[in-house]
Amino acid sequence: MFSKILIANRGEIAVRIIRACREMGIETVAVYSEADREALHTQLADEAICIGPASPGESYLNMQNIISATVLSGAQAIHPGFGFLSENSKFASICRECNITFIGPSPECIESMGNKSNARDIMSKCGIPVVPGSDGAVTSSEELLKIARAIKYPVMIKASAGGGGRGIRVVYAEDQLIKNYENARMEAKEAFGDDTIYLEKFIERPKHIEIQILADNFGNTVYLGERDCSMQRRNQKVLEEAPSKVVTEELRKSMGETAVRAAKAVHYNNAGTVEFLLDKDNNYYFMEMNTRIQVEHGITEMVTGIDLIKEQIKIAAGEKLDFSQKDVKIQGHSIECRINAENVKKGFMPSPGKVKDLYIPGGFNVRVDSAVYSGYDIPPYYDSMIAKLIVYGRNREEAVCRMKRALGEFIIEGVHTNIDFQFEIINSDEFIKGTYDTKFIENNFNG
Amino acid sequence: MFSKILIANRGEIAVRIIRACREMGIETVAVYSEADREALHTQLADEAICIGPASPGESYLNMQNIISATVLSGAQAIHPGFGFLSENSKFASICRECNITFIGPSPECIESMGNKSNARDIMSKCGIPVVPGSDGAVTSSEELLKIARAIKYPVMIKASAGGGGRGIRVVYAEDQLIKNYENARMEAKEAFGDDTIYLEKFIERPKHIEIQILADNFGNTVYLGERDCSMQRRNQKVLEEAPSKVVTEELRKSMGETAVRAAKAVHYNNAGTVEFLLDKDNNYYFMEMNTRIQVEHGITEMVTGIDLIKEQIKIAAGEKLDFSQKDVKIQGHSIECRINAENVKKGFMPSPGKVKDLYIPGGFNVRVDSAVYSGYDIPPYYDSMIAKLIVYGRNREEAVCRMKRALGEFIIEGVHTNIDFQFEIINSDEFIKGTYDTKFIENNFNG
Repeated sequence: MFSKILIANRGEIAVRIIRACREMGIETVAVYSEADREALHTQLADEAICIGPASPGESYLNMQNIISATVLSGAQAIHPGFGFLSENSKFASICRECNITFIGPSPECIESMGNKSNARDIMSKCGIPVVPGSDGAVTSSEELLKIARAIKYPVMIKASAGGGGRGIRVVYAEDQLIKNYENARMEAKEAFGDDTIYLEKFIERPKHIEIQILADNFGNTVYLGERDCSMQRRNQKVLEEAPSKVVTEELRKSMGETAVRAAKAVHYNNAGTVEFLLDKDNNYYFMEMNTRIQVEHGITEMVTGIDLIKEQIKIAAGEKLDFSQKDVKIQGHSIECRINAENVKKGFMPSPGKVKDLYIPGGFNVRVDSAVYSGYDIPPYYDSMIAKLIVYGRNREEAVCRMKRALGEFIIEGVHTNIDFQFEIINSDEFIKGTYDTKFIENNFNG
Repeated sequence: MFSKILIANRGEIAVRIIRACREMGIETVAVYSEADREALHTQLADEAICIGPASPGESYLNMQNIISATVLSGAQAIHPGFGFLSENSKFASICRECNITFIGPSPECIESMGNKSNARDIMSKCGIPVVPGSDGAVTSSEELLKIARAIKYPVMIKASAGGGGRGIRVVYAEDQLIKNYENARMEAKEAFGDDTIYLEKFIERPKHIEIQILADNFGNTVYLGERDCSMQRRNQKVLEEAPSKVVTEELRKSMGETAVRAAKAVHYNNAGTVEFLLDKDNNYYFMEMNTRIQVEHGITEMVTGIDLIKEQIKIAAGEKLDFSQKDVKIQGHSIECRINAENVKKGFMPSPGKVKDLYIPGGFNVRVDSAVYSGYDIPPYYDSMIAKLIVYGRNREEAVCRMKRALGEFIIEGVHTNIDFQFEIINSDEFIKGTYDTKFIENNFNG
């Protein structure tokens, strides 16, 4: 086992990793930017090294300084957390060259999964369902008609060069296809000077369901159930829960086994997440694989009892998983609300500043992962997420009631937060029913 | 179910009960003394009523004012918490007369168990082991010899009027018995003017092991495993853990079933705890039954997943237990450290005052039940316990490491605390081994 680990991150995930290390008897080295001198992770770690100015590019993304800090401190491994360098295969390669263990998958895995179209191809070849569509550009009306019939309506016509919703058409029936194709091409030509078009099945009101996996370096791969991350605002997750109310035992097994196959296809090692879109008929399609620990890993920990950060460290140190698939039991229900310093009324604009009065909820089955403290000055340079409020209940109903209780206790003064917004979400009918999809916030909150 | 409950208590247990009520959709009424105007329980409850001056006798023990507050607020039930009126059978009777539900056992149960010598008699008659001894006073050397032989050495000679260790002799062999008997009588006569003597088996280095039980009003009674509360200073518990390292599955079942029998003997209802002394040969003896929720109930919640406060409320509302003995599973390990505002170096003298800097540890499987907040002024009138730091681990080793980590993060400035003392305890060999007994602190810390 490592005796010292450097944490190449900040905020609550850095604190989370420091805690796991401390419980394992491993010394920790924090790195911090000049803006993070007073940050909790800087204070909590056994050592802390400044790696540059506030700008992430010059500090938390500064590979050279991070490697130097590692060598200087004598740490044998780097935990990258999420964001920043966590999915940077070049950084993972440099670590390898420097004989530093990167706590995450191999650079090859990161590379394979990092290129989304490449990942889709690999998955497709292994028989893992991806969103059906044309194999690249569609060059004629005949081809378009043929593919649309094969993948079934509704379909989505997309401009290769598209963006901002332009050059996109959703088509529900064959008699509308050619007209929309022509319109989309024209629009794309005008907007981007490129009328290359491809076709994809349109997934109506999809759920974002992801499977957590763990894989050691000896080929043992397990799945730890799903997380329902459909509550999103502009592709940013806002609230997550495990298990999903719409996933049956059978579907969980099917998606879990598919995720394990996906991981094995790239000889995946360490913790990872396979993200799927789930349609209303319970068909699921591979979206992408995140080759790192995720923000929302805590809810999986709550329902499985497995400490994912410790498992990451143990795997990276060359240990075998000490449990197998049959030992993984999903018990109870967990929900996470991301607490952001942002002004919901002003378009969710970040709201950095000094935290004055702070009261963090506690009690039975309430967990708060956070890096704020009373008097902390939230810097404007980084992500606005300042706390993860996680609850657990014997069932979903209890978890929901507990989340309402805990949200009600939370006091953060000095900055704006999204606490009231989270309240609105968990009080909504669709959330209570559990059927909300990825468009829920957009459709209901002008989010 | 009740729509409104009054909580006749203060501090963290009042907060704990408010939280449970809120999660159940029940409105809460706090009562507070003039010293507790700014207390967290006063702030958190839906309503708060002042019931008198700081002195507990005039506020938290003031039955008349508490009953008036209940009637005034329209609450249908009172939760007494622990301490104060929680084991006062007269108060429970008054509640009954006023048609207010007392959330706890019947006045008759409280009465039966409240008189310790009476309780011992009841238990003895039901075949529940009590510490063997003479049946009242011993009046001759012959009787003494006979009883000592029957209960086996070592035995303890005790003056009925004794106190402060005077008039007590531990005797390990028969040839020392008569001499010690005469000495103890002489000492008792001199010290208390009463040489009445009785004999009891001396339990060497006992463990304090208690069994949590839950009983509904329909005769369903279950046990929820044990808590090891041997870590005591002057009979005050300091740290508790569940399960006990020395209790085997077989012993747990035996003690659990005995506790259920003890409860059934008095037709016990609601939550209760049967306390036993456990000797080094795994013989156990009934000490007393606590007819209320206990400070350390949280560790049982962590290892069973059962919310004891919610169960208390449901039972009091006339619901049946919705699980049976076979559904109760003890999983993992939980430890609680009581965090007290006290000056360990000055004989554990209470250290009230204003809490300045406060940082409460968080993260996976760390639970803090507390009523302090940054800026809170701890009043000098009540118990010095200000927080319960509870951790859970998949096994005892992980729980111990997690407790060390969490204790290390805890910052409370402005008052003295016993955090360093708790550190010393959990770092001690005897704690790590799990074999510590009720004299451990006295023998090792001049506590």
